[in-house]
Amino acid sequence: MIDGIIISEQNIIPTDGGPIYHGVKNSDIGFNTFGEVYFSFIDKNALKGWKLHTKMTMNIIVPVGEVRLNFIDNREHSKTLGDEFIINLSEKKNTRLTIPPNLWFAFKGLCEKNMLVNIADIKHDSKEVVTKDINSMVFK
Amino acid sequence: MIDGIIISEQNIIPTDGGPIYHGVKNSDIGFNTFGEVYFSFIDKNALKGWKLHTKMTMNIIVPVGEVRLNFIDNREHSKTLGDEFIINLSEKKNTRLTIPPNLWFAFKGLCEKNMLVNIADIKHDSKEVVTKDINSMVFK
Repeated sequence: MIDGIIISEQNIIPTDGGPIYHGVKNSDIGFNTFGEVYFSFIDKNALKGWKLHTKMTMNIIVPVGEVRLNFIDNREHSKTLGDEFIINLSEKKNTRLTIPPNLWFAFKGLCEKNMLVNIADIKHDSKEVVTKDINSMVFK
Repeated sequence: MIDGIIISEQNIIPTDGGPIYHGVKNSDIGFNTFGEVYFSFIDKNALKGWKLHTKMTMNIIVPVGEVRLNFIDNREHSKTLGDEFIINLSEKKNTRLTIPPNLWFAFKGLCEKNMLVNIADIKHDSKEVVTKDINSMVFK
């Protein structure tokens, strides 16, 4: 596990006509403030990454399909420097991940249709994003 | 059209591996403050409603499938008292609807898989929700 990542298991509420998935509430553990929410679709077997946010804390949910995520801790003063964290998020289990800034991450689609939601504490700003080629580190 | 409803056409950003849909930013028109985000799935031909929020302003997006929504204005002092507003939201066009409180609404799934996102300015609170049987008003 990587220091600072929070895993929250959330409710799926069955209702007539289709279930309701909790996203995030302003009082939830791991929620700071609201900057932006966006939806990232990822095709089956496609990879997105590597990316690192220098300022953004992400709250990530996968309410459609299944997505495999890899995180790598290269933070100089981290207690878990060098550690990896690998997890599959899926619609079968409504897990929310809180990801602090300065971790490398990449993700892969596992189903025909996959959607990752990011509820971020700041708006998208290309100046706070660092990227590396997907082949520069091993995705597991 | 119903007074107070705002329609915002938003970007769909093509990227390698799958598109990104804008949700809402804290600086967007129609955004007040953040209470909660949740995801409501609705089966094909299923109907959910009628509901009325006495306090919540909703921001609604349909990034998966297509959903038909009906709104009815029964607000006593509204300029558009008695009016209806009917719209289809779909993944083909990333439209965000801002819905003020005190409008009746119901919605129907049109595709095999449909997901409606609500970015709400308050957390879910059953005390501020009024419901009516789906057959009590005509869904169009």
